[in-house]
Amino acid sequence: MQSLNNTKVKKQNIGHNTIVKCNDVNIGEGFCTVIAGPCAIENEKMAVQTAKEVEAKGAEIFRSSVFKPRTSPYSFQGYGTNGIEIFSSIRSETNLLLESEVLSCEHLEILYDHIDLVRIGSRNMDNYELLKEVGKTNKPVILKRGMSSTIEEFLLAAEYIISNGNERVILCERGIRTFETYTRNTLDILAIPALKELTHLPVIVDPSHSCGRRSLVPAASRAAIAAGADGIIIEVHPNPGSAISDGDQSINFEVFNNLMKDLYRLSEVMNKKWAVKNRKMTI
Amino acid sequence: MQSLNNTKVKKQNIGHNTIVKCNDVNIGEGFCTVIAGPCAIENEKMAVQTAKEVEAKGAEIFRSSVFKPRTSPYSFQGYGTNGIEIFSSIRSETNLLLESEVLSCEHLEILYDHIDLVRIGSRNMDNYELLKEVGKTNKPVILKRGMSSTIEEFLLAAEYIISNGNERVILCERGIRTFETYTRNTLDILAIPALKELTHLPVIVDPSHSCGRRSLVPAASRAAIAAGADGIIIEVHPNPGSAISDGDQSINFEVFNNLMKDLYRLSEVMNKKWAVKNRKMTI
Amino acid sequence: MQSLNNTKVKKQNIGHNTIVKCNDVNIGEGFCTVIAGPCAIENEKMAVQTAKEVEAKGAEIFRSSVFKPRTSPYSFQGYGTNGIEIFSSIRSETNLLLESEVLSCEHLEILYDHIDLVRIGSRNMDNYELLKEVGKTNKPVILKRGMSSTIEEFLLAAEYIISNGNERVILCERGIRTFETYTRNTLDILAIPALKELTHLPVIVDPSHSCGRRSLVPAASRAAIAAGADGIIIEVHPNPGSAISDGDQSINFEVFNNLMKDLYRLSEVMNKKWAVKNRKMTI
Amino acid sequence: MQSLNNTKVKKQNIGHNTIVKCNDVNIGEGFCTVIAGPCAIENEKMAVQTAKEVEAKGAEIFRSSVFKPRTSPYSFQGYGTNGIEIFSSIRSETNLLLESEVLSCEHLEILYDHIDLVRIGSRNMDNYELLKEVGKTNKPVILKRGMSSTIEEFLLAAEYIISNGNERVILCERGIRTFETYTRNTLDILAIPALKELTHLPVIVDPSHSCGRRSLVPAASRAAIAAGADGIIIEVHPNPGSAISDGDQSINFEVFNNLMKDLYRLSEVMNKKWAVKNRKMTI
Repeated sequence: MQSLNNTKVKKQNIGHNTIVKCNDVNIGEGFCTVIAGPCAIENEKMAVQTAKEVEAKGAEIFRSSVFKPRTSPYSFQGYGTNGIEIFSSIRSETNLLLESEVLSCEHLEILYDHIDLVRIGSRNMDNYELLKEVGKTNKPVILKRGMSSTIEEFLLAAEYIISNGNERVILCERGIRTFETYTRNTLDILAIPALKELTHLPVIVDPSHSCGRRSLVPAASRAAIAAGADGIIIEVHPNPGSAISDGDQSINFEVFNNLMKDLYRLSEVMNKKWAVKNRKMTI
Repeated sequence: MQSLNNTKVKKQNIGHNTIVKCNDVNIGEGFCTVIAGPCAIENEKMAVQTAKEVEAKGAEIFRSSVFKPRTSPYSFQGYGTNGIEIFSSIRSETNLLLESEVLSCEHLEILYDHIDLVRIGSRNMDNYELLKEVGKTNKPVILKRGMSSTIEEFLLAAEYIISNGNERVILCERGIRTFETYTRNTLDILAIPALKELTHLPVIVDPSHSCGRRSLVPAASRAAIAAGADGIIIEVHPNPGSAISDGDQSINFEVFNNLMKDLYRLSEVMNKKWAVKNRKMTI
Repeated sequence: MQSLNNTKVKKQNIGHNTIVKCNDVNIGEGFCTVIAGPCAIENEKMAVQTAKEVEAKGAEIFRSSVFKPRTSPYSFQGYGTNGIEIFSSIRSETNLLLESEVLSCEHLEILYDHIDLVRIGSRNMDNYELLKEVGKTNKPVILKRGMSSTIEEFLLAAEYIISNGNERVILCERGIRTFETYTRNTLDILAIPALKELTHLPVIVDPSHSCGRRSLVPAASRAAIAAGADGIIIEVHPNPGSAISDGDQSINFEVFNNLMKDLYRLSEVMNKKWAVKNRKMTI
Repeated sequence: MQSLNNTKVKKQNIGHNTIVKCNDVNIGEGFCTVIAGPCAIENEKMAVQTAKEVEAKGAEIFRSSVFKPRTSPYSFQGYGTNGIEIFSSIRSETNLLLESEVLSCEHLEILYDHIDLVRIGSRNMDNYELLKEVGKTNKPVILKRGMSSTIEEFLLAAEYIISNGNERVILCERGIRTFETYTRNTLDILAIPALKELTHLPVIVDPSHSCGRRSLVPAASRAAIAAGADGIIIEVHPNPGSAISDGDQSINFEVFNNLMKDLYRLSEVMNKKWAVKNRKMTI
């Protein structure tokens, strides 16, 4: 890809794999990092309960979404700024890092001091003005691939962040649009090794949005690690059937527990360490 | 589409076709409106020259892009705020209305008093925070369909604008992503009659971004009108071969002139009036 | 497209537009030819009734499908060889030419003496062994584009026929697969001018399979002619609501009648003659 | 999927997972089977050399293609019937089973007595007349998914075979068409768990055609097994750089050797036995 010739995302221009360090958590080549939590924070109790559970099973980062980009303006738009208080509860009850999606520069400002990682969702991968703003911070950024973005466009979106000064970018494959309707999206599993040969940045996978069906999520997660992904961001809910948003693709605690065991074994095959070096699986 | 049941975009909920009036220009069912101009304003001379030419051939609105969303951060990002002075020159030399793309709330504020219509590009169709802001104004909005947005999502994006108070929305089909590579995008011509049966809003087509090749643009434009579109937004450049951006898909003055003659005849077949009621084609 | 360099489909290698003549019917540049009839022949009465009706309104060729490729083996597979008797009735009651789909070399042999044009459906565009067989005959062939074939592959499939000796190939765009679900397929309207600049072969459009919804079929048909297509192949049924197959996309006689009037006017704008030179529209 | 309600492919209608036995090779749930060999047989020497090599590393079945469906009629169309003699050489030098693609009923007849498994390629998944013929035999059939076939259509194509009497069908996911161009196709990894919950039939993956680039093939293969596939069909060539067809996606012996070691370890994680029960990896 000629368009990458003089970019900072290109592997050959850097010469090493970037490990994004976030406190004691390593994200990148050689590690397997699990980000887990509900699609959206619904209330304090479920958030804390889920956080404790996923931490106990080996997750390092909590998915703490309070601003939700929804297709319809009449759908639940997230818990909003009130969610910030809940962040404190999670921090007092667990050692998890917190990540959350921002949809605008205003959101970024509101959440900045309360989260450890910023997430840019698929719908905003092409929102270059937001990318530039995030690029001016030094917070780690999880950048999700657009629903129909090419690998090249995905990398150039990351370049918008890096070229503004922030090199702590984590790429997230989350499924692309195709004609297939049995799954919500088509997980582009080949994007993982493709990105790994093109860029030095960490690559993780969102199996939940890829699948849209919880029954497929464990297989998608395993495939991601076997294909070389450096981790996953996965939706876990105490009771997926009653979730306010995306319940169909959320897994419950038991399924998550079994999945983590599989991922642990797969990480060994793939020569990947668990994200925190000295942590042992308690499962 | 159940998701449209209680929406304001739905045709059956409104009972009439919306004509967006912008000074003396009508955009909507029964009219054919042509928006023309270069992909990007490059300098005053070419902008004014192009504006005078497209006005003479029957265009009513000038495409006046000064902020350009480019895949690479290193590509030309547009003439920027300096373009505002050029707007004055165009207004003093022609009677054309001006439309321009905004990529952020900041752009919206900067351009608001200088343009007649706001354009939201494909990359920002899912930028709901921007849609909400545009929804709080009463400026006509050209909303382009996302590169891989469904018709349903397109209509719900419009609903984000309308539900915030601004009903002057013009939908623009501009091609979707498919496996075909001969064309830049695949013009979804069926989206025109589909939108026409689902919504009361005006529907226009961008043949230039659909095609990506100037040789196909006239056919795409004719097809759009024959399928029922209420107008087109088309890239015209004095010398496409030397354009700073998207020259491959821009047509020159002669091709534009011939195309306008075809569109005039097609509008008659389709029982569409030219956008300004008493205007006569001078061609 | 380099792959076309030494092919017989390439326009520049031939230097003229091919008009496929079939008795007194011309198919190709400068003409507009309408092929109409039901998705499948259901019985003699409906076949003859439909044939007389579409002939009266200006169609020149009757869509006479007796072998149906169906996604499920348990769906109606067509009237089969018994349909051949019905062909005789249509011939005795009208002057229409007959075309029919073949799914195999065996079908080709069975139908060969009874039809004027052979149709290869989308599902068999890549069935090269069948293409070679058809290429050894001198019967005009309507070759439909595969559901996800590129324009290049489409042309090379035609080359399989021509390189075996049969130059009477008519290309048919019929919609491609995309993520959009409101329509059955996405009519690739740009394929028409694209094919017109790449090849000398006639290009027609199947609006019925493109749309999958009869309400969109007239707009799709008009767009096809305005984009430069040399004709359409369209599903017409006396009572679409009770059709055995594809009723949702079939139009009734009244809608067909109105559409033909539109196409006649559009053909004039496009400088296209009606397929039979001295025929006048009776509508 | 309602269309599967009364089908023989549906898991719930059968109540067990089908293991296709082919001599002493098991293909299906609980096993991992590797089919390997060149894209096309080019000559006896390379065929035998490759066969011995892949057998030594754990493959059970040899990919022995002699009829090649090529996009252009002027590309190499395969070694043809002369290849049958080479089959004898492979059998005398190895214990591998042989599989080969048939493009027509004629090919099926020619190859029938010389191969152990029949392959129907992507281009012929919709060639229902061929499926019916294969369904009348009792030879195991590897059915590849069409380039843009839905999972539902894929299963109904299998039903065409089974409903004609042959239940020994092995489904093969091989990548689908999307807008992404860095890879030849997009491997639909989610199709594996999706098929596993919908049908009792074995599911394998073709990583070579999915990727189109050999650097991605090992990751694709590992992901396939981790997602639950029952095996892979992979292109291996003594010298991929000089292959007559598809050299870009073929891996050499060394890469194949390393991949097999990975697959062996992954099979253990997935509780899958190697295809031949008592065989031990010699690697």
